[in-house]
Amino acid sequence: MAESMEWLLSDAKAVDGWIKNWLYQKSDEAILAPRLLAAMEYASLNGGKRIRSGLVCASARMAHKYSHKNTAGAAIGVAVAVEFLHAYSLVHDDLPTMDDADLRRGIASTHKKFDEATAILAGDALQTASFEVLCQPQLELLAEQKIELIGCLSMAAGVSGMAGGQMLDLEAETKSYDINEVTQMQALKTGALITASAVMGGIVGGGDKSLIRALSNYAKNLGIAFQITDDLLDYQGSETQLGKPVGQDNIRGKASYGGHYGLDGAAKKAQEFAEKACDSLQDYQEHAIELHSLAKFTTNRTH
Amino acid sequence: MAESMEWLLSDAKAVDGWIKNWLYQKSDEAILAPRLLAAMEYASLNGGKRIRSGLVCASARMAHKYSHKNTAGAAIGVAVAVEFLHAYSLVHDDLPTMDDADLRRGIASTHKKFDEATAILAGDALQTASFEVLCQPQLELLAEQKIELIGCLSMAAGVSGMAGGQMLDLEAETKSYDINEVTQMQALKTGALITASAVMGGIVGGGDKSLIRALSNYAKNLGIAFQITDDLLDYQGSETQLGKPVGQDNIRGKASYGGHYGLDGAAKKAQEFAEKACDSLQDYQEHAIELHSLAKFTTNRTH
Repeated sequence: MAESMEWLLSDAKAVDGWIKNWLYQKSDEAILAPRLLAAMEYASLNGGKRIRSGLVCASARMAHKYSHKNTAGAAIGVAVAVEFLHAYSLVHDDLPTMDDADLRRGIASTHKKFDEATAILAGDALQTASFEVLCQPQLELLAEQKIELIGCLSMAAGVSGMAGGQMLDLEAETKSYDINEVTQMQALKTGALITASAVMGGIVGGGDKSLIRALSNYAKNLGIAFQITDDLLDYQGSETQLGKPVGQDNIRGKASYGGHYGLDGAAKKAQEFAEKACDSLQDYQEHAIELHSLAKFTTNRTH
Repeated sequence: MAESMEWLLSDAKAVDGWIKNWLYQKSDEAILAPRLLAAMEYASLNGGKRIRSGLVCASARMAHKYSHKNTAGAAIGVAVAVEFLHAYSLVHDDLPTMDDADLRRGIASTHKKFDEATAILAGDALQTASFEVLCQPQLELLAEQKIELIGCLSMAAGVSGMAGGQMLDLEAETKSYDINEVTQMQALKTGALITASAVMGGIVGGGDKSLIRALSNYAKNLGIAFQITDDLLDYQGSETQLGKPVGQDNIRGKASYGGHYGLDGAAKKAQEFAEKACDSLQDYQEHAIELHSLAKFTTNRTH
């Protein structure tokens, strides 16, 4: 499998390069606020798996029927926007008044490395950056496509998407959610941005409505598979592997997939959703190979 | 003067109506997160002066050479985006780890009314909303104009604008800024969004490059006049009038305009900048009447 995921690493490398370049350009403009820029860099270049980037790029290639060795240049820029948005959400989620996480991907979370105020601002500025990136003239897309992308990303990130999901997660501290409520909450908190990533890739690749719908169905199912796997890793994983404290969800009394279906049952559920994801793309045959491999990667990962 | 500012009240009313309508529509989509929506409403409909809205709308009318009784419908939507962005910045600035302000416009700040986590999320979702609003199909503008607007707003809000300015303001707690450094910090923290408001109005109104440049110069000077006036009100005002604690800047040892130029000297400086602002618009004669009155209003206000 390692072989087949080279494209994910290659996209991740391109995204990291784009981010470094953006930060370098900004260091001239934002000469007065080097600390803020350093916190943004820390939060956005911390060795994440870049699954969302991969989704954007692989979806763009599927839509465009590109050879799998080529990536639309614009797809990388769009992937950067999604990663900035994702990075902002992690920085804010980790804050003491939110999930209060000291670790993220094995290293100090942004507010621990810097301080709370800087982390709040870095998250804020990363969110802004994701929209700024999407209107840059060097992103070779039509203005109509850019507007569609920004609309898609903002809907996924806002009150009826990711931010709404995080609100529900906070409220879980005082309510006790059953497994359906947890699934609904996760569909907003993480599912919305995962779905948006695939849809945005489809838009970049100039896909038609039925392709966008197929990508959306793929990503919705992938998002659930992703979440069940995350939950299982949290349930059984070690802090060293995960790079963050484990068992947090159980402590809070939220239902978990592992707790509800049992470990084997939950792992099977994750597989089922990953397969359902792949079934959504059956019309696209060999052009969907990367997205198939991403579904496998998502459920087989160990961190 | 009350007479001549009716347009500002009228624009503010239209903006409030637009925001209410948006929130109402969102209450269906975001049915799971009513608390987050309530916090967003609390933060965005709290009786602000709506100077930034006024700037957007009056600049659009000047660019469009509209009769002063008519407002381009799209200008109101764009003004809403700017007000959402401004509201987000106030919610986050008031947080305990930032400026730690319990009051805003005479009532409890958002984190006091709700809680810190909800306030952080409400600010986050308000920022997202400002970009979402700018790509709505019902906003009757060309895709190219929308992209220009989003580019302008994101540049003004991000690390090389407002967020960078807030970072400098935080750092002022440990450094002691002289009056030039305070001016530079304020140019980012509040000036960038004020300038963007006028420029965005110009874009909505279809203004040419020289008009946009004139609006930008106007707003840069207006922003300084605004800031000196704010500073003077903070220096000499009462908490009841201002609706927020006074003298905060002096406590922190940042240089103030009142402290540096004396009260009369600073008031004169504010007048000078307001006049300089108006001079930037001399080519636009009677079409600039509203923006002239806004400059007077800004320096003569008591809260």
